Amino acid sequence: MELLDGKKTANAIKEEIKAQVTAMQSRGDRVPHLAAVLVGNDGASLTYVGSKVRSCEYVGFESTLIQLDETTTETQLLTQIDQLNADASIDGYIVQLPLPKHIDEEKILLAIDPKKDVDGFHPANFGRMALELEAFIPATPFGIMQLLERYAVPTSGKHCVVVGRSHIVGRPISILMSQKGPAGNATVTVAHSRTENLAELTRQADIVVMALGIPEYLTADMVKEGAAIIDVGITRVADSNHPKGYVIRGDVAFDEVAKKASYITPVPGGVGPMTIAMLLQNTLLARKWNS
Amino acid sequence: MELLDGKKTANAIKEEIKAQVTAMQSRGDRVPHLAAVLVGNDGASLTYVGSKVRSCEYVGFESTLIQLDETTTETQLLTQIDQLNADASIDGYIVQLPLPKHIDEEKILLAIDPKKDVDGFHPANFGRMALELEAFIPATPFGIMQLLERYAVPTSGKHCVVVGRSHIVGRPISILMSQKGPAGNATVTVAHSRTENLAELTRQADIVVMALGIPEYLTADMVKEGAAIIDVGITRVADSNHPKGYVIRGDVAFDEVAKKASYITPVPGGVGPMTIAMLLQNTLLARKWNS
Repeated sequence: MELLDGKKTANAIKEEIKAQVTAMQSRGDRVPHLAAVLVGNDGASLTYVGSKVRSCEYVGFESTLIQLDETTTETQLLTQIDQLNADASIDGYIVQLPLPKHIDEEKILLAIDPKKDVDGFHPANFGRMALELEAFIPATPFGIMQLLERYAVPTSGKHCVVVGRSHIVGRPISILMSQKGPAGNATVTVAHSRTENLAELTRQADIVVMALGIPEYLTADMVKEGAAIIDVGITRVADSNHPKGYVIRGDVAFDEVAKKASYITPVPGGVGPMTIAMLLQNTLLARKWNS
Repeated sequence: MELLDGKKTANAIKEEIKAQVTAMQSRGDRVPHLAAVLVGNDGASLTYVGSKVRSCEYVGFESTLIQLDETTTETQLLTQIDQLNADASIDGYIVQLPLPKHIDEEKILLAIDPKKDVDGFHPANFGRMALELEAFIPATPFGIMQLLERYAVPTSGKHCVVVGRSHIVGRPISILMSQKGPAGNATVTVAHSRTENLAELTRQADIVVMALGIPEYLTADMVKEGAAIIDVGITRVADSNHPKGYVIRGDVAFDEVAKKASYITPVPGGVGPMTIAMLLQNTLLARKWNS
């Protein structure tokens, strides 16, 4: 069994990006510039945006954090977005989700210029990805593709079962893995809450991608000997024995499944750490498009 | 076994659209207006565009056929597209494919205003469809969804194997059938040229969608008793006994598969006739958007 080490891989990608930025600087090129918009004071969002900004600094990107008050109106946020779209010095930007309830997230996401949409959530990007044009790929599926590719997990002709059909994980990873190219050419099944006989399906799979959000759902009896297991789940489970009062669990019963797996991502330290690295990768692409 | 009669269903849809147009006229509303751009003199394209224009007339739409010379340059065609994008009297338009070799099809498709892209080939439409926003859905998958819905073929929780991953059939139908909604909620597998053990997969399927383009590829031994079979293939097979010198064959060995199937589309007369009806349906949506 080989552990798919997301932390190590994410660090390697950051070093590669850093080297590219150094090369840009030595050529006298402008470095990539990422902006992040945060509305309100949600603790988790603050932490997450903070770590994105620090990662930008680490690799040598310019970064701008735009913090707006919780009471910001939808119209004010749309005005901010128009400014970011028009500002040629900003290559890409993200609007940290969730937004306060009085703001329509869909309206905001659709207002982002697709050429600056480094989260890859705009339909124009999703469509470009699905139609095999150069596109910003959402960070989580992009990170999974990188793990599969860098660990040379066999995918071509293999049967992959993706459990979950969300817009930002299940759906895009199912498309990417069945396209031509690295970590592609798999035969992909998308399963979800309405699927009958899920265990029968996962037991046939050479690769299982769990993106369901139910802790330890995938147990050893549901997987084939030698399967590769990708766990996207991150759920806080109450645990009074732990100083924080909770532990983080994935969708996979790790200890028992790991014994049968050829490859497996740990939680934490698997898919999670890859996401910021892929956001940086998208910002590098945004810089290329904005020139 | 029930035949999924595309000709009859397409006619029913056209009558529904015609009734809506009549209602629009009696309210004094402008009727939908579809334009079609045809470059060159390809016989099949002429026939196909001609039948689109006649269908428009039948349901009471306004239609405009723009015929351009085979020698039209890419720049000239892009100018034509700009004019169509700007012309408020045209709700939607199509550019008939294939285009002459000296014109880059991708460049042309990307120049079409997504709000007028009634073929649903623009990435912005594909993304909207995949992200469950109102969108123009490409005619073939849209037609399949209508057949499944109108014949009440059970899909929820059922296993559907789609054979083919093309941008205009296999990929979109796989997404649509696994989304929530009518003819949806299926567990969908996308198989393709690299798939190992295809017969093993199709034998498990409650529904098989064949979109491979290889005549009579799906044989009786590859399907489960009681499966629903959708055949998207349309291939001309040489046949000296036939006055035209060929016959039309689908991807399914119809006679033997029909004996095991619960539902099956004939070829011709199944999915094929649905496409023009769905183009008209999209034009109706374009009219709604353009108001």
